[in-house]
Amino acid sequence: MAVYTEVSDDDLKALASAYDFGEIVSCKGIAEGVENSNYMLQTTKGPYILTLYEKRVNPDELPFFLGLMEHLARAGVQCPVPLKGRDGNALRTLCGRPAAIVSFLTGIWPRRITIDHCAGLGPALAGLHAAGRSFNMTRANNLSLAGWRDLFSRTGAAAENIERGLSVLISDELTALGKAWPNGASDLPAGVIHADLFPDNVFFLDGKCSGLIDFYFACNDFLAYDIAICLNAWCFEPGGDFNITKANRLLAGYETVRPLTPAEKNSLPLLARGAAMRFFLTRLYDWVNTPPGAMVRPKDPREYLHKLNFHRGVSGIAAYGLS
Amino acid sequence: MAVYTEVSDDDLKALASAYDFGEIVSCKGIAEGVENSNYMLQTTKGPYILTLYEKRVNPDELPFFLGLMEHLARAGVQCPVPLKGRDGNALRTLCGRPAAIVSFLTGIWPRRITIDHCAGLGPALAGLHAAGRSFNMTRANNLSLAGWRDLFSRTGAAAENIERGLSVLISDELTALGKAWPNGASDLPAGVIHADLFPDNVFFLDGKCSGLIDFYFACNDFLAYDIAICLNAWCFEPGGDFNITKANRLLAGYETVRPLTPAEKNSLPLLARGAAMRFFLTRLYDWVNTPPGAMVRPKDPREYLHKLNFHRGVSGIAAYGLS
Repeated sequence: MAVYTEVSDDDLKALASAYDFGEIVSCKGIAEGVENSNYMLQTTKGPYILTLYEKRVNPDELPFFLGLMEHLARAGVQCPVPLKGRDGNALRTLCGRPAAIVSFLTGIWPRRITIDHCAGLGPALAGLHAAGRSFNMTRANNLSLAGWRDLFSRTGAAAENIERGLSVLISDELTALGKAWPNGASDLPAGVIHADLFPDNVFFLDGKCSGLIDFYFACNDFLAYDIAICLNAWCFEPGGDFNITKANRLLAGYETVRPLTPAEKNSLPLLARGAAMRFFLTRLYDWVNTPPGAMVRPKDPREYLHKLNFHRGVSGIAAYGLS
Repeated sequence: MAVYTEVSDDDLKALASAYDFGEIVSCKGIAEGVENSNYMLQTTKGPYILTLYEKRVNPDELPFFLGLMEHLARAGVQCPVPLKGRDGNALRTLCGRPAAIVSFLTGIWPRRITIDHCAGLGPALAGLHAAGRSFNMTRANNLSLAGWRDLFSRTGAAAENIERGLSVLISDELTALGKAWPNGASDLPAGVIHADLFPDNVFFLDGKCSGLIDFYFACNDFLAYDIAICLNAWCFEPGGDFNITKANRLLAGYETVRPLTPAEKNSLPLLARGAAMRFFLTRLYDWVNTPPGAMVRPKDPREYLHKLNFHRGVSGIAAYGLS
């Protein structure tokens, strides 16, 4: 849940005059995205989404994110398309913040993940990876190894408060990941990844994937790392069990668009450990740094500790349902 | 900001089958209303608002609220119209809560109140009062004198913590209001009032009032008490000054539809004191009873203490810009 900034009717009037979508007849803050303020705009030409970028987004990186969405949409990926104003710019300033309007996507994100959702996610993710190949801007993943170490160093004794002995375990795991993690010279296919493709960023309609949203963590990294993030976010049951059927459908669906290389299959358990570490650490950081009166409730990091432990016990791709 | 309940895609499918609006293609929680969960529904027949009634609304009173909106809309008041399902019912159950779908109203609520907004509010409020005359259900105002005393008794020493000596002042004022407050035998016109017509419940479009929302405090009381609530909510500047021009435009606008009686004009300062007391006490109550980690930040009750004091110093309608 977001909506941090109050947009006045005067601001909206000024905004409307910069675009060709007629008049804004309604603007309601929506509970979507946690990093930015999002509004559902109804205009005389139809619905749009207005986003105000809050503190956590680096304004210098917005041209990458907006350019990526435009590129992907042009390549056929169902994602929000930044709307250009009369001046030709998609990015502008509103209420003292960077702001953009994007197209409205139909669909509803799934609250209860089924096998069919995983089957629909796979091809959509592979389609994003394929379309991203021809995008010519790049952004480093600041939430990879170095970022994890930095986050861990800034959480202090927090891990210890969650579980005794946990800080040593995390420290050891970071060392192990650091030794094994593939580097730029690896033969793993790399490119633009979404890097945050959780269920609330994937819309479905009539059982089919109808769109992907929230590209504000997108960056360049190993494509299979994006798959690893999805294995964590989509294939564990609420009780904690790993659902191998969901993983199989996700991976098999992915391969209908882009077959995985042998190196990717071999690396998946390691990448999944890293992906679990990444979300464990950001959640741990938020857990420690969210003041008690904040409007956003931090998520329990232990969910990702459990996932990390699962992948530590995985020796090969068979555990994810592929042969 | 609201949205407390997560509506699943399965719930939405079941909901859609109960109505004749085609398919639900989007459902987003919106930051509207503080008592209930509200969602913007996009259907293949257009936009609607879905409301799930949370704890603070008494389910037994929902037929009054929904019936009132239907009655007012039929009488020409621009307000949400409850949508009836195939079974003829507007009220149903979703996620274990009472729920209703209402029509979508265009317009944006004003963040910075101008004199023109007050001029537009007056006739809209009078139109609501006129249309409410023929509504045949009734609901007592549980936030009048007895309700204020009850709220005050349940806030304990809270007033004292805000300002030393405040609890005696409030207690004395409640006694004074109790002696002077008009009763059922008074000659003040009574009927259905909105009882919570703050700026976020009034939409404007192209400078004109385009609709009134959130009827979940509506009840039967003196019509002029509703005006008194609006004087408090619309005619004080953010710094605390009372803007007599705004009050004049509000009252003059109201009188274009329904002229005030001499008794109403005489009672307005007293009713405005009572209205300020009502919002001071509910804010004081929320201030004390909102846990630190809650998603909703309580409003500072002192704003209404200031307004109460202003009206205590008013001797006649001239202070509100009417002669």
